[in-house]
Amino acid sequence: MLKVRVLVRPKPGILDPQGEAVKGALPALGFEGVGTVHVGRLIELEVESERDVDAMCRRLLANPTTEEYEWEVVG
Amino acid sequence: MLKVRVLVRPKPGILDPQGEAVKGALPALGFEGVGTVHVGRLIELEVESERDVDAMCRRLLANPTTEEYEWEVVG
Repeated sequence: MLKVRVLVRPKPGILDPQGEAVKGALPALGFEGVGTVHVGRLIELEVESERDVDAMCRRLLANPTTEEYEWEVVG
Repeated sequence: MLKVRVLVRPKPGILDPQGEAVKGALPALGFEGVGTVHVGRLIELEVESERDVDAMCRRLLANPTTEEYEWEVVG
């Protein structure tokens, strides 16, 4: 089995409420010097072959309207 | 500014309903040969220094009871 890591993030310009929430909370905890913050999804799955990973991303793992994705074999 | 990528995933043995949901949906869409599936969070942030990233993870970005994290500077 191959171990695949998929990273899904909001497309640029798309509202990212989770990212905004983290960006607002960090200074409140005393962390300064933070710029942009974006929150997305990490999906790690075992697959028999890489052949279908792109289709899995397009059809299920990422919302093509609001999200972009990248993936790599990590093990 | 440094670009940091934080990956947050459920600790082994911790219930992962999102992972289970994806694992169940993939065969329904015709994707066979899928093993374990885990869903976590991807956080990408710009910081002036790496110094506080671990503390940010421990205090805000990851739940120390149910999640583990790793991070790297990516840009």
